[in-house]
Amino acid sequence: MKILEERILKDGQVLGKDVLKVDNFLNHQVDPMLMQQIGQEFHRLFKDQPITKVLTVESSGIAPAIFTGLAFNVPVIFARKHKSLTLKDELYTSTVYSYTKKVSNHISISKKFLKADDVCLVIDDFLANGQAVEGLMDIVGQAGAKLAGVGIVIEKTFQKGRHLMDEKGIRVESLARIKAFEDGKVIFLDDQEATTHAVH
Amino acid sequence: MKILEERILKDGQVLGKDVLKVDNFLNHQVDPMLMQQIGQEFHRLFKDQPITKVLTVESSGIAPAIFTGLAFNVPVIFARKHKSLTLKDELYTSTVYSYTKKVSNHISISKKFLKADDVCLVIDDFLANGQAVEGLMDIVGQAGAKLAGVGIVIEKTFQKGRHLMDEKGIRVESLARIKAFEDGKVIFLDDQEATTHAVH
Repeated sequence: MKILEERILKDGQVLGKDVLKVDNFLNHQVDPMLMQQIGQEFHRLFKDQPITKVLTVESSGIAPAIFTGLAFNVPVIFARKHKSLTLKDELYTSTVYSYTKKVSNHISISKKFLKADDVCLVIDDFLANGQAVEGLMDIVGQAGAKLAGVGIVIEKTFQKGRHLMDEKGIRVESLARIKAFEDGKVIFLDDQEATTHAVH
Repeated sequence: MKILEERILKDGQVLGKDVLKVDNFLNHQVDPMLMQQIGQEFHRLFKDQPITKVLTVESSGIAPAIFTGLAFNVPVIFARKHKSLTLKDELYTSTVYSYTKKVSNHISISKKFLKADDVCLVIDDFLANGQAVEGLMDIVGQAGAKLAGVGIVIEKTFQKGRHLMDEKGIRVESLARIKAFEDGKVIFLDDQEATTHAVH
């Protein structure tokens, strides 16, 4: 997605070897106009699927997910993060390890909102090591629902998340795919490489 | 806002004396179509103000805030919640006590996103005791920015938040105003009462 790549180049900040800070348009200050375009793009990519629910994890996934839900005209569920969980009876839960924060969180979705006949689209802001997406996939599985695919705003192709998804045969559509950070600059995977990668 | 009141009556769940659970359209599962209408309504109410930033607190405020930002064509900032804060230099911070969870959280906004020439509209899902809104107002004050007003999706008029705002002369627009829960039913403040209240 051209407009997103341009925004990353303009406003993203590379920190160290593998961190991209996009807190001025995606995960602290948010650009609603860009989020709307992102939601429409996910709809264009997944409109062949009979999506009934859009799932994400609080908080940074909510803005792109809500516009995706709007484009599909379906509800959005954001999984809650918890340090610990005591009352689990009414919840589907999974455990998510954050490599950035080096802590495990539980995430949960109320059982009443996810049913076996749901077709789910998982949306998240980043795909790095794939832990948050795997947690949501786990919950979709517990509900016996179908996972139609995963929509990612920014993918870091050099971390293991994409590989994990490919291994499981999950369809992943990422709007910007970063193959490396070099000298503080963002290098995108170009379309030809992406095709080659997909053929592997 | 008629459509919101109807939705609360249809899908809201009263728990005990003072809790309204709206987790099937507002703060766990979210209805994006309703959120869009809410954003447009806040725009209609505050469009006389030269709003430059919409502020909220993660996570439940994000959906209504993002559509308000879209309607105003301005950025949305969601304050982050923290259990503790060590590096504060680049942040405006405030402390928010949650009566529901009986814990204090710190909330923060990066200094780089809020400037003295900003005109802020604070949006939140609930106004009960007013703690989250007060925390955001504190941060707006620290930045030397202007607070144009506060937009609330659901106000519980019988808790102290509205009174606190009125005392400070803050303009608050709530889309649904609940005066009581009686026998598990939601009783809204009618328009006449609201006018009388405002005249006090």
